[in-house]
Amino acid sequence: MEVFAVPGLPEIREGDDLAALVAERVDLRPDDVVCVASTVVSKAEGRGAALDDFPASERAHEVARRLSELAGEEKDPRFAQAILEESEEVILDAPFVLAVTRFGHITVNAGIDQSNVPDHDLLLLPEDPTASAEALSGSLGCPVVVTDTSGRPFRHGQRGVALGWAGMPAARDWRGESDRDGRELGVTVQAVVDELAGAANLVTGEGDGGTPVAVVRGFAFGDHEGSDLLFRSTDRDVVRSALREWTWTPDHTTHHEG
Amino acid sequence: MEVFAVPGLPEIREGDDLAALVAERVDLRPDDVVCVASTVVSKAEGRGAALDDFPASERAHEVARRLSELAGEEKDPRFAQAILEESEEVILDAPFVLAVTRFGHITVNAGIDQSNVPDHDLLLLPEDPTASAEALSGSLGCPVVVTDTSGRPFRHGQRGVALGWAGMPAARDWRGESDRDGRELGVTVQAVVDELAGAANLVTGEGDGGTPVAVVRGFAFGDHEGSDLLFRSTDRDVVRSALREWTWTPDHTTHHEG
Ligand SMILES: Nc1nc2c(ncn2[C@@H]2O[C@H](COP(=O)(O)OP(=O)(O)O)[C@@H](O)[C@H]2O)c(=O)[nH]1
Ligand SMILES: Nc1nc2c(ncn2[C@@H]2O[C@H](COP(=O)(O)OP(=O)(O)O)[C@@H](O)[C@H]2O)c(=O)[nH]1
Ligand SMILES: [Mn+2]
Ligand SMILES: [Mn+2]
Ligand SMILES: [Mn+2]
Ligand SMILES: [Mn+2]
Repeated sequence: MEVFAVPGLPEIREGDDLAALVAERVDLRPDDVVCVASTVVSKAEGRGAALDDFPASERAHEVARRLSELAGEEKDPRFAQAILEESEEVILDAPFVLAVTRFGHITVNAGIDQSNVPDHDLLLLPEDPTASAEALSGSLGCPVVVTDTSGRPFRHGQRGVALGWAGMPAARDWRGESDRDGRELGVTVQAVVDELAGAANLVTGEGDGGTPVAVVRGFAFGDHEGSDLLFRSTDRDVVRSALREWTWTPDHTTHHEG
Repeated sequence: MEVFAVPGLPEIREGDDLAALVAERVDLRPDDVVCVASTVVSKAEGRGAALDDFPASERAHEVARRLSELAGEEKDPRFAQAILEESEEVILDAPFVLAVTRFGHITVNAGIDQSNVPDHDLLLLPEDPTASAEALSGSLGCPVVVTDTSGRPFRHGQRGVALGWAGMPAARDWRGESDRDGRELGVTVQAVVDELAGAANLVTGEGDGGTPVAVVRGFAFGDHEGSDLLFRSTDRDVVRSALREWTWTPDHTTHHEG
C-alpha cells in the first residue's frame, strides 16, 4: 500500500472544481482511495465566513462568559455563535466547547478553523461531508474520504479522522470471522476510513505544506462485511451521556487542549 | 510512503526473538518504522495467562456482579480480577470496564485479549510497551511502534493505536509554526505514532491473516519539534474526570461497544 500527496495544488477558492484540479495532477486508478482535507472541501464549497455573519445570541454570550470565567479563555461571542449554529448539541461548554456537528461528528469548536483560511475569519466544516465525498467520488471514479484533524479524549494530540466517505464502507465488520485458533474475534468493527485518514495526514501535515490531498494506492478492503456506522448515536455513546450530565469546574483540570 | 506487512511470520511463543524473526524476512532501512501488534509482543514476552492465575477478590466479584445486573453481561470474576491487576485505575465499571493500564493507556478491559491466544485463556498487554519498543528498535536499527486495536468515545468501531514507541517522537509539535497565511496554527500536536499505527492496521487486519508486523517505509517525520506525551494525565483529561464522577444506569444507553 502506498500513500502519497498530490503535488502542486493551488490555493482553493469558492467554486473551484476540486475533482478536476486533482485529476489533472495524478492518474487515478479505480481502487485508489483519495483522502481530501476538509479545509479545501470547505473552501471550494464557500464555507469561509466572517465573524460578523454570526451576531451573538444570549446563549453565545453566556458560553463566552463561562469560558472566560471558568477557563480564562477569551472567545469572541460571535465565534461561540458560529459554533452553536453549526451544532446539533453542545455537550460541554467549559473548559472548551465540545459540540456535535449536524452530521454527527463530535469535536472542539464544531471543527471551525481559524488557520489556513485567507480572506475569511472562519472556515466552517463542509455542511455534509458524505455528500461532498459522493460528488468527488463520482467525478474521480474512485473512493473518497473527506478528512479533518481532530483531538480526542484520553490521548494528547490530534490525528486525522474521516468526516465523510463514498465509494467504500466506513468499516470492516469482522463479526462472524474467526481468529488463528478459530475463536470468535475480540475486535469486531475496524473503522478503516479513520485509519485511512490518519495515514493520509502523515503525508499532508498541518502547516503550510500545501498538500491537502493524499492518494492511498493498493489498499484492499478485502472480503469483509462493510459497515457505514461511524458516529455513535446518543443512546450508544456512554461518554457523551456522561459529559452531558457533568459540569467542569476549574479544580478538575489544569489544562485542557493539546 | 509505503506500508506493507512482513510475510511468513510463524506463531509466536514465549521467548521467541521477534526482532530476529522480522529481520530474517525483510531488509529494513534505518528510516523504516516497524509497527508490531502488541499481541505478538505479549506472546514473545510470555504474557499469556490462565484465568486461574487470577483468584477473584471481593472487588472483582463486585465488578462482575454489577456488569451482570446493570448491563446483562456475564464476566468471569477471574477476568475482572485480571483487569484490576493490570490497571492503575478503573474509571468506569458499567456498562463495560474502562481501565487505565499501568503505562497510561485507557481502554476496555485493560486491553486484555481473549482472541488470537492459543494455549492460554488470556493475553495481557505488554507490561511496558515503550520498553518493548526500545528493545526491538535497538535490535532492528530503526524506529518501532508497538500497536493495539482499541475502541474510542464518540465513534463506532476500533482503530490502530500506539502503546509504545522508540527511535522517534510520538508526535509532531507544530506550535510556533504557521499556516499558509502566516497565521498561528489551530492544530498544535499531531500524534503521528497513532497515525502510523492506524496505517499499519490497514494491512495487518484483525483476523487470522497472520500478519502482525507492518513496515512503514518513506515516512518523513520532518523538521518539527518532537513530543513524547501521548497519554493524558488525570489532571489534563476532562473526559476522564467526567467518567470518574459519573455512574452509568441502564436507561443511559441501549448498547455499549462496537
Ligand atoms: N494547495 C493547497 N493546500 C492547502 C490549502 N488549504 C490548506 N492546505 C494544505 O492542506 C494541508 C492540510 O491543512 P489543514 O488546515 O490541516 O486541513 P484540515 O486537516 O482539513 O483542517 C496542509 O498541508 C495545508 O498547507 C489550499 O487552499 N491549497
Ligand atoms: N504470524 C503470526 N500472526 C499473528 C500471531 N498472533 C496474531 N497474529 C496476526 O496479527 C494480526 C493482528 O492481530 P490482533 O489480534 O488484531 O493483534 P492486536 O491488534 O495487537 O490485538 C492479525 O493478522 C493476526 O492474524 C502470531 O502469533 N503469529
Ligand atoms: Mn480542520
Ligand atoms: Mn489537518
Ligand atoms: Mn489487542
Ligand atoms: Mn488488532
